Amino acid sequence: MLSDIEIAKSAKLKDIRQIAFSLGIPEERLKLYGNYIAKVDHKYLKELEQQGKKKGKLILVTAITPTPAGEGKTTTSIGLSMALNKIGKKSIVTLREPSLGPVFGVKGGAAGGGYSQVLPMEDINLHFTGDIHAVTTAHNLISAMIDAHINHGNELGIDIRKVYWKRAMDMNDRALRQIVVGLGGSANGYPREDGFLITAASEIMATLCLASDIADLKRRIGEIVIAQSEKKGLIRVKDLGVQGAVAALLKDAINPNLVQTIENTPAFVHGGPFANIAHGTNTLIATKLALLLSDYVVTEAGFAADLGAQKFLDFVAPTGGLFVDAVVLVASIRALKYHGGIAKEELSKEDVEAVIKGMENLKVHVENLQKYGVPVVVALNKFESDTQAEIDAVMENSPVKCVVNEVYAKGSEGAIELAKAVEEIAENTPSNYKPLVPMDLPVEQKIELIAKEIYRAGKVTYTETAKSKLSMLKKNGFGNYPVIIAKTQNSISDDPKKINAPKGYEFTIRDFQISAGAGFVVALAGEIMLMPGLPKVPAAVNIDINENGEIIGLF
Amino acid sequence: MLSDIEIAKSAKLKDIRQIAFSLGIPEERLKLYGNYIAKVDHKYLKELEQQGKKKGKLILVTAITPTPAGEGKTTTSIGLSMALNKIGKKSIVTLREPSLGPVFGVKGGAAGGGYSQVLPMEDINLHFTGDIHAVTTAHNLISAMIDAHINHGNELGIDIRKVYWKRAMDMNDRALRQIVVGLGGSANGYPREDGFLITAASEIMATLCLASDIADLKRRIGEIVIAQSEKKGLIRVKDLGVQGAVAALLKDAINPNLVQTIENTPAFVHGGPFANIAHGTNTLIATKLALLLSDYVVTEAGFAADLGAQKFLDFVAPTGGLFVDAVVLVASIRALKYHGGIAKEELSKEDVEAVIKGMENLKVHVENLQKYGVPVVVALNKFESDTQAEIDAVMENSPVKCVVNEVYAKGSEGAIELAKAVEEIAENTPSNYKPLVPMDLPVEQKIELIAKEIYRAGKVTYTETAKSKLSMLKKNGFGNYPVIIAKTQNSISDDPKKINAPKGYEFTIRDFQISAGAGFVVALAGEIMLMPGLPKVPAAVNIDINENGEIIGLF
Repeated sequence: MLSDIEIAKSAKLKDIRQIAFSLGIPEERLKLYGNYIAKVDHKYLKELEQQGKKKGKLILVTAITPTPAGEGKTTTSIGLSMALNKIGKKSIVTLREPSLGPVFGVKGGAAGGGYSQVLPMEDINLHFTGDIHAVTTAHNLISAMIDAHINHGNELGIDIRKVYWKRAMDMNDRALRQIVVGLGGSANGYPREDGFLITAASEIMATLCLASDIADLKRRIGEIVIAQSEKKGLIRVKDLGVQGAVAALLKDAINPNLVQTIENTPAFVHGGPFANIAHGTNTLIATKLALLLSDYVVTEAGFAADLGAQKFLDFVAPTGGLFVDAVVLVASIRALKYHGGIAKEELSKEDVEAVIKGMENLKVHVENLQKYGVPVVVALNKFESDTQAEIDAVMENSPVKCVVNEVYAKGSEGAIELAKAVEEIAENTPSNYKPLVPMDLPVEQKIELIAKEIYRAGKVTYTETAKSKLSMLKKNGFGNYPVIIAKTQNSISDDPKKINAPKGYEFTIRDFQISAGAGFVVALAGEIMLMPGLPKVPAAVNIDINENGEIIGLF
Repeated sequence: MLSDIEIAKSAKLKDIRQIAFSLGIPEERLKLYGNYIAKVDHKYLKELEQQGKKKGKLILVTAITPTPAGEGKTTTSIGLSMALNKIGKKSIVTLREPSLGPVFGVKGGAAGGGYSQVLPMEDINLHFTGDIHAVTTAHNLISAMIDAHINHGNELGIDIRKVYWKRAMDMNDRALRQIVVGLGGSANGYPREDGFLITAASEIMATLCLASDIADLKRRIGEIVIAQSEKKGLIRVKDLGVQGAVAALLKDAINPNLVQTIENTPAFVHGGPFANIAHGTNTLIATKLALLLSDYVVTEAGFAADLGAQKFLDFVAPTGGLFVDAVVLVASIRALKYHGGIAKEELSKEDVEAVIKGMENLKVHVENLQKYGVPVVVALNKFESDTQAEIDAVMENSPVKCVVNEVYAKGSEGAIELAKAVEEIAENTPSNYKPLVPMDLPVEQKIELIAKEIYRAGKVTYTETAKSKLSMLKKNGFGNYPVIIAKTQNSISDDPKKINAPKGYEFTIRDFQISAGAGFVVALAGEIMLMPGLPKVPAAVNIDINENGEIIGLF
């Protein structure tokens, strides 16, 4: 099979204005970035809402607990949307923007793969429309303002030991995780401990993805808690008076990016927050706009269902006023065997027993999703090494309808059955979607509910740090705030080594963070890596550009 | 008078395709960024060169030694180009891209001012086409690769005390000048001293601005010296094998940005290197392309004539094969009075004597420029506080033709006389342009020549550090390399306090840096600030965005 970029280059792209036209978007609402990418003015959303336009159905794509390599949620989302178009439905896929960190690190490109890609992949993977750079800059303007404020007299009395706001960069760079800034004498300010996050982990990214418009974005940015002051308590961005400039830096980033799939169907690729310390889905603006422009919107939530889908169903959808019509749970034989106890290196060997054993993981996720009242269909992502006996075992043991999916190798042709299954469910099995976690519960009760109902823990404990942070949160009015739990993506539990379907274990909250701009409290369970590192031989050494400006070696 | 952004908003912009059309650029060579900004494929330059198209005349705009507020080189360049169009010449202005550091710091926007601006100013000032972010990312990919290499076994034997390559950010952030990275234990690599430059000071920026095409850019990036190894000597980017990925990140940044002036005349705004540790002019690709598309190209060199013009005339023009037809030297009554000994706060008061005294500074710059065989015209930038007696004093004492220039308040109407003077000179006074510093002289002789002939020093001395670096340079084959001198912009000398026309002083080189990718050795005279800081009340607190997405408070 050809490489992703070779397949991408052989595709015939349509002018993006044609794609926009097919959705009824007037040309004056577009800002072109070349012939194949356009931003759609976010104010167009309000316009359509005021017209009372009918919303399409929302299909959430999530996955079972993956192997470290990932099981193809993005390719499935793209392929499903292409297939829905193929069977006569107007469908848009909405995705997150790829971060440069993984592009140069282990993963390579992140715009789908094989015959299920969004294009132009080399642009989407490299800078795209500059949204992530805008978020990085907006983030670092706040950082620079904090140190400038401290340097010029520190009127707010910021405690330099309690600056919560780190710096950000869209790069895998472990050397920046923990640093000391302000060295070299008084001209350079006050030395203090600091560190960089990868931009996907920035609260600015989460905030941008949840904001409804510029005014809301600016208000949210103003609320962001950046530090503590002994005399003034929590210090926020609005105390520095810079929320306007930060929002100004996001003037274009707030507008959804319209691109196309390899089969010329529409796609919004917009925003890219982490699914552990943030909510893990593309911007609400893009999803809401897509819903007003199509019959079906296929959207992807980051990591496995216990992380991305839980956050989407309990927090993102209620925040954006979204109704979820169906959930597609992506599974793979490889991942099932992994949960069945097979070592990573042995996953290509047939092992029906292991598949059946690993189905416990799938069953937990299905059960969890059903607690939200949403219909679930399993999409079994076919890999070359899968055998018919293994596939049959999945089919026989799946608690809900299960369809084999071959979008990577076949594009929409590989997902026709999946599209039909989704259509059948969406048309004939009304969703009773309702969040599991009420918005107004106290923080501990929210955590209890998620840990026991979704993560299947027996008991929740708090470290001393977590307890004291929690009492600080309560004192500052965050006691009933929405909760986002940050934990490993490699297990349903808080321990990456607990594969398959752990239960009854002790779930530990070790700390809290406030994301008052994004609008949630983060409960940290386990060590969460917010700045990845480059491997010994990173993808960067294979990426190249030829004399004609064509990108080579991007997978 | 209205603010810059108010004036900008009242302008009627033309579709950028119309501007391109007026220059004969075919639409398929454009990549649009909305309706008013386009990138022109850099390969179009080669095409025009192969067609043997006739080149226009090149006018270099430089200035006398300025007051810290600057004397209006950019507005003069834009206004002159608009006025040349007004008198029937096809003229393009080529400028550097504004850095976000000054936008949020002291200066505000940097796309001209008053009735002499390039538009859309809010886009040009905020992210523009993402070139500077691409340079930042390209720079930091190298940084991340260095620390990853050290972390994963350090096969090259990089001495962590001798990593020359710092990190970069497009922000005024003094706390990042001197930092320690890699703290927090072995998972985060090896602790070492480091620091951030503002992106304009990155060698990637200088390299991009000097490269002739992608192949040349990639070759140059590979040559960049990043560190020293005891066993392997100088370590370069190509030793990490990442020049391809770094160049890939610059795939769009290499293409010139076409915009328009407030009077709808064409402008290329492309690249933005410092004029102290780098050469201080927009990309060679943009200037060369502009020369093949027009009768006159007006280009601006950073800082005063001793910095920007010297570098342009001795290094940039020979590197790019450019011929300089005339030089416009921008002066202001304020700056002349400053050199005449008047305090900054008193510059608005009439003082003819001080003006006459300060003319010494202007005369040195004129004399210097004449050493290059180029015709010089003085453009006296009129400010509101200037009196007729002061203006007359300048006219009477100017060693060359001097024209009053009012582009800020009047647009092209304020520069008609200047345009006519430039036309007259360019048509009737053939330039005998020739570099003053031969390309193949030893480094010390080059420094001697520039220090004595341009800076008017009596003697050049080297610190011990400089001497040992110089012998290292010679050992590594840089003994006859081009030299870029980094020194203060506030004096002709190396001492910012020496105003007007210092001479016979001792000029001290304190260190050297190698910019092997850009293709020069930097001789550092005095402390050069490569990462500015934010003032107590930065411009950022006045910048805002309203609900319609319009930017407010950008000057």
